[in-house]
Amino acid sequence: MDDFNKLVYSLSKLPGVGRKSAVRMGYYLLDHKESAVEMFSNVIESIQNIKTCSVCGNYCSEDPCPICSDHQRDMSILCIIESQSELLAIEETGAYKGQYHILGGALDPLSGKGPDSLRINELLDRLANGHFTEVLIATNPTVEGESTFLYLQNILSEKGCRISRIATGIPMGGSLEYTDKFTLSKALASKHYL
Amino acid sequence: MDDFNKLVYSLSKLPGVGRKSAVRMGYYLLDHKESAVEMFSNVIESIQNIKTCSVCGNYCSEDPCPICSDHQRDMSILCIIESQSELLAIEETGAYKGQYHILGGALDPLSGKGPDSLRINELLDRLANGHFTEVLIATNPTVEGESTFLYLQNILSEKGCRISRIATGIPMGGSLEYTDKFTLSKALASKHYL
Repeated sequence: MDDFNKLVYSLSKLPGVGRKSAVRMGYYLLDHKESAVEMFSNVIESIQNIKTCSVCGNYCSEDPCPICSDHQRDMSILCIIESQSELLAIEETGAYKGQYHILGGALDPLSGKGPDSLRINELLDRLANGHFTEVLIATNPTVEGESTFLYLQNILSEKGCRISRIATGIPMGGSLEYTDKFTLSKALASKHYL
Repeated sequence: MDDFNKLVYSLSKLPGVGRKSAVRMGYYLLDHKESAVEMFSNVIESIQNIKTCSVCGNYCSEDPCPICSDHQRDMSILCIIESQSELLAIEETGAYKGQYHILGGALDPLSGKGPDSLRINELLDRLANGHFTEVLIATNPTVEGESTFLYLQNILSEKGCRISRIATGIPMGGSLEYTDKFTLSKALASKHYL
């Protein structure tokens, strides 16, 4: 394999990049050789600098991360999510001001992902030592996320804090006609009185 | 700017990667930290290993490149193209077996790209020293590519080799109805008798 093919092969390992985009990227990078090398050196440096917060599990430059160490935030509510990218999605809404706990995935027995592979002991420690009055379970409404929710609901039910679940329903701007029947029946079951 | 944002910023400089894909890539890379660092080191290594062929201008591991040094190929026809990616596109068809000359762009006076910024002196040297009987001008059928074609046609007309131009017309699988009028009139003007 010559160097260009090696370059394309390496680039095509990036998520969302197929062979065609990798070829395009490759030519672009070779056309801007110096800045490309600088850019990739920066990427490597950033990757090596980023740590995992020992409290919530988020990626951060300092441990504990800015969210865990921000005492302006609500320290009484803990939002449980599957992964780091969901934290960013929630933070971008600005609609939540509490703490987070990242599980590092969801239960998925078929791929051998049991409770031991998730950050559940860390969660129990935080609940035992913290002053949380509410736990908001925001795992994804998928098969894995739902089973993780049921599992967590089960083990957290006697920890003395209120348990809540993020709502499932028709997305804003969506239409009832084109909503799948599972979402629609869930939305009907979760109706709320005004 | 913290390290994660730096990472996203660097990744979003890749062509075809916006902020959203860069965020997704960033999380993916952090989830696979070690292999990501290795991958980017490989990318840097490949970029630094790749040279530019002093004959045709293609990216290659050795100079001259495998195409220029392959004496099985037709040494009497020279195909002039704008950039390296077009060489790959033509090679993938398998329909051309001659030599190439990469100009490194097209004439574009509005962006200050004149004949001096293209590899035209190298082209004239090759024509003077080589045994080419035909020059196939395969610049893109865009405004810049067409003016480059006219310019080349002008300076090459007295070099004693036949000049040809890659055909413009309705793409295979296309329909006359949805073809733009410039392409359609060009296709009609280029009709050939059977």
